[in-house]
Amino acid sequence: MGIDTSLRSTGVGVVDAVGSRIVPIWYGTIKNPPVRAFSSCLVHLQDEITKLIGTYQPLAVAIEGVFYAKNVKTMMILTHARGVIIAQCARAALPVYEYEPRRVKLAVAGYGGAQKEQVQKMVKTLLCLHEEPQNDAADALALAITHLHSRTSIAAHTMKPI
Amino acid sequence: MGIDTSLRSTGVGVVDAVGSRIVPIWYGTIKNPPVRAFSSCLVHLQDEITKLIGTYQPLAVAIEGVFYAKNVKTMMILTHARGVIIAQCARAALPVYEYEPRRVKLAVAGYGGAQKEQVQKMVKTLLCLHEEPQNDAADALALAITHLHSRTSIAAHTMKPI
Repeated sequence: MGIDTSLRSTGVGVVDAVGSRIVPIWYGTIKNPPVRAFSSCLVHLQDEITKLIGTYQPLAVAIEGVFYAKNVKTMMILTHARGVIIAQCARAALPVYEYEPRRVKLAVAGYGGAQKEQVQKMVKTLLCLHEEPQNDAADALALAITHLHSRTSIAAHTMKPI
Repeated sequence: MGIDTSLRSTGVGVVDAVGSRIVPIWYGTIKNPPVRAFSSCLVHLQDEITKLIGTYQPLAVAIEGVFYAKNVKTMMILTHARGVIIAQCARAALPVYEYEPRRVKLAVAGYGGAQKEQVQKMVKTLLCLHEEPQNDAADALALAITHLHSRTSIAAHTMKPI
């Protein structure tokens, strides 16, 4: 399960490896409307992530590594949400792996500096989807794909969950 | 209940207003040993905060406002913990109020630039404790005291939980 953490729109993408193929299981976003209080957003996120973990029973979770955004306020809001999500995954005994944005782009689009649109297109192609997933969901699927790739790579033994 | 949020040592202080007096109910720290994985620390914090809320049934929670520390990494780690704590309070339908460090020092020590040691001393005096509480617990008690003061002040109607 890949999770693109955010307070107002968290992308979630679940994939599975069937032989050498990667197949999509589910993807979507957890939304928090702008009117919802900050603390209630965290509770909603907690509830929805817990439900999705229960439904799809993933074996591992991939999230974006902490990155230092230019806008500190945005970064701080996101980090509260990230804390809640990591806690819920750990509570379900799920190992959580972090991937840098560049690595995700490299794994999915073959180029670390790929644009959002290229990632969306490549996710659609790799998973044989009928349409491009919405932005946050595409990022979440890309994270999940990156994890499956890394898991089977030579460097897999150096991977350590947080 | 005042909570001085942190990943490795979260201070918690519970106070009550009895007439015009503020009395201490409980204080202590939630510790996470350095060897514990980051995600497990968040789970432990979640469990302990939930237990303390259940035991002391506070009516409100006071935490420190987000402050932008010089060390961004430290700030980010703390913010994950803060997210988990706020979510647990909101889950228990507890309003969470933020207070700036300066305001807490002003309320407890009468001076916004007060040192840690002065806050500890004043918390001891204000609550008629036999000894000075440990640093994080003192900060948590100071937050709780600040909230009780603010609650009865003229500005109380402008206070808004997060």
